[in-house]
Amino acid sequence: MAFCRHFDTRPMMNPVAILTRKRQGQALTGMEIEFFVKESVAGRVPDYQIAAFLMAVAIQGMNPQETWALTKAMRNSGRQLDFSGVSGPKVDKHSTGGVGDGTSLVLAPLVATFGIRVPMMPGRSLGHTGGTLDKWEAVPGFDIHPPRDQWKHILEKTGCLLISPDSDLAPADAKFYALRDVTATVDSLPLIVSSILSKKLSEGAQALVFDVKVGSGAFLPELSEARALARSLVSTSRKAGCRSVAALSDMEQPLGRAVGNALEVKQAIKALKGQGPWDFVELTLELAYWMLRMGGIRGSRTQLLSALRQKLLNGEALSRFAMLVEAQGGDPGIVKDSQDLLPRAKREADFVSSKAGYVTMLNARDIGGASVELGAGRKTVEDPIDPAAGVFLHKKVGETVRKGEPLATVYAATRDRIDKGLEYLNRAYRIGSQPVQRRPLIQGVIGA
Amino acid sequence: MAFCRHFDTRPMMNPVAILTRKRQGQALTGMEIEFFVKESVAGRVPDYQIAAFLMAVAIQGMNPQETWALTKAMRNSGRQLDFSGVSGPKVDKHSTGGVGDGTSLVLAPLVATFGIRVPMMPGRSLGHTGGTLDKWEAVPGFDIHPPRDQWKHILEKTGCLLISPDSDLAPADAKFYALRDVTATVDSLPLIVSSILSKKLSEGAQALVFDVKVGSGAFLPELSEARALARSLVSTSRKAGCRSVAALSDMEQPLGRAVGNALEVKQAIKALKGQGPWDFVELTLELAYWMLRMGGIRGSRTQLLSALRQKLLNGEALSRFAMLVEAQGGDPGIVKDSQDLLPRAKREADFVSSKAGYVTMLNARDIGGASVELGAGRKTVEDPIDPAAGVFLHKKVGETVRKGEPLATVYAATRDRIDKGLEYLNRAYRIGSQPVQRRPLIQGVIGA
Repeated sequence: MAFCRHFDTRPMMNPVAILTRKRQGQALTGMEIEFFVKESVAGRVPDYQIAAFLMAVAIQGMNPQETWALTKAMRNSGRQLDFSGVSGPKVDKHSTGGVGDGTSLVLAPLVATFGIRVPMMPGRSLGHTGGTLDKWEAVPGFDIHPPRDQWKHILEKTGCLLISPDSDLAPADAKFYALRDVTATVDSLPLIVSSILSKKLSEGAQALVFDVKVGSGAFLPELSEARALARSLVSTSRKAGCRSVAALSDMEQPLGRAVGNALEVKQAIKALKGQGPWDFVELTLELAYWMLRMGGIRGSRTQLLSALRQKLLNGEALSRFAMLVEAQGGDPGIVKDSQDLLPRAKREADFVSSKAGYVTMLNARDIGGASVELGAGRKTVEDPIDPAAGVFLHKKVGETVRKGEPLATVYAATRDRIDKGLEYLNRAYRIGSQPVQRRPLIQGVIGA
Repeated sequence: MAFCRHFDTRPMMNPVAILTRKRQGQALTGMEIEFFVKESVAGRVPDYQIAAFLMAVAIQGMNPQETWALTKAMRNSGRQLDFSGVSGPKVDKHSTGGVGDGTSLVLAPLVATFGIRVPMMPGRSLGHTGGTLDKWEAVPGFDIHPPRDQWKHILEKTGCLLISPDSDLAPADAKFYALRDVTATVDSLPLIVSSILSKKLSEGAQALVFDVKVGSGAFLPELSEARALARSLVSTSRKAGCRSVAALSDMEQPLGRAVGNALEVKQAIKALKGQGPWDFVELTLELAYWMLRMGGIRGSRTQLLSALRQKLLNGEALSRFAMLVEAQGGDPGIVKDSQDLLPRAKREADFVSSKAGYVTMLNARDIGGASVELGAGRKTVEDPIDPAAGVFLHKKVGETVRKGEPLATVYAATRDRIDKGLEYLNRAYRIGSQPVQRRPLIQGVIGA
């Protein structure tokens, strides 16, 4: 009877009722969230209602139960990969995005030498942050779309797999994300966590190590915000039955010395030979240590870190890297001859210091801005990438510089790009007369 | 230079920047609000961004300056009527909507007899509340779309004009309102105020009297909410240079005894003859008094109320009503012969009391629900109206009833509708053994 509908006191399952409750700051039930996500993906909730939902969540927040319900519903909106046929623990790493953060290039082969399987589906560069996928694509011939029937084979053989995320993983995230960008709801904790995890949990890993960045170049620059994100990522992953831990790492200045895709591949190859910049190596080892722990590898922290260093010095990690490159169609000769085989920029220019002193600031966000202007990153998702473009940082915070000495070198295809990049460098560097304390690289580990 | 855009520290005028600021609870500038409204009406802001804006405003609120800026921008989005060619003060009344609230039918001709000009563009019934436009249309032949070139003439001649709101008045409101309904942002104070006033301020009145309803049948049932709405309506109107005052009137039970379009016309004609139900007459006189005051008519409250009563008793208001009906194409004979000329329902049924006692509750929202089921109102804007349908309330709160005596009579076109209406009546009435105190009809006047 139509009449009965009006007297029905059960909570009504419709988008407007759900919007009303969230607008009022109430916690939604798992059923409501599941309904909203399912109906959205099925195209039965129009974009304007999704937009209103995102804004209400961004302002009113979500409790841990709601965040997990949203993550689960978004994960369940698509296909879930299953690598259970591949032996060994499957562990992935996720970074919230930074500048010069090419640790994945080293981490995957390094950890794989311990029998850990690393199936990675990383993202692309956007805005000032780099993307691991673009870095792998700077390796000549490297194919991020290997045929699906070879995925297990590559993972079995090399211990790694590096592929472009499937569009049928967590389609709810693609739908929501497109609207978050245009509704000022990107930096909302429950929306960030559900976006990251709905995809990560679809990728078949049994454990996750998060690298949550803190500082000027981070998505959430404040330590308190980054810590809250790390806590939510860890607790929500665990609700999904996925072991996890999160390191908080500094992104006030860029990581390492190379920013730009081919430049970072070159730096990674050096690191795989035991010659990487200290901060890049330190963070890589910290994350690798946690990946081993999450993968069930036994040993004290000292023993595991020592074993990891050994793999960098004895060439085992490097040959694993070459194996992966070859398995995905790239030229493994790159490990010997990176200078000649990697793409090189047409133009380069030094950014020299106008005075002597100490580097007191090197703003990661501005270096990210420089890399975008140089052609290494994207302003919009459609922009093409110049793999050879980027910045090499000769001087980082705390180091001394003489007047006229190069602080950095920029690489790009055109004079115009070089000039725009140099303007950003001018903003990024500050030279003072007194030495400054460097911020600690690892600012905490959540869930250890 | 493209490069300069990145260093521009001026606030950026784009929808995402505006959404970000409102999401964070910041006050928007007049320029930002004007920009957002203009771009929305021009179709350059997609619905999902408007939806996110509405949700952010509904949660974070707006200060008085923002509310006025939004109202002004919405008013300026369309045409503004100008009755300055018509002599005399132009005063309009607006009710926030209730059940059995047909005061406008009496108010317009009554006040017009004092030389006040009343150009009205009222709304239609929706949900449990009635609409003045539907009531006028219950008068046989009455045309709510008279040719535009006759508007001034009708207003000059009768002192009144009753027309359907033009779609080119405040088009921003139409656009926003359609989205508020589906994004759970209807009951937001700044959105309500800007919606009401953007239209009212476009209609050429120099002064406005608001009837803000309080109680179960009101849009905002709580006195505190209704008072906040009244305050915001008055202060925002004044910012527009429009004199205004707001009465808070009880809508816990319906006003008068008639609910339904033809039934209310019949009741209004009785009231114009000095025979209206006491509460209906009391509220009509209160609002009429404030319309005279706003229109600059001199005299003490006692003198003006007495003069108003006189116009009901001496037939002057009634003949002005007949004049208006005739000027807009209706049959003026209705004032003598309303029983025969008004549409009559095919079916009727009494709702009798199952016990003796006092009426302790008569829920206005349920009576509104009954009238919708009977065919007097609309569930959606497309629903047709049955002008003859409705409820006549023989007993109201505080009155005694014998067992088996009719509490109300319902009118509809079908047996099915009658039955559904009776179910609502069963919920609406409560009979107790002790008499109860009636709530005061006028619960306050704001801006007096």
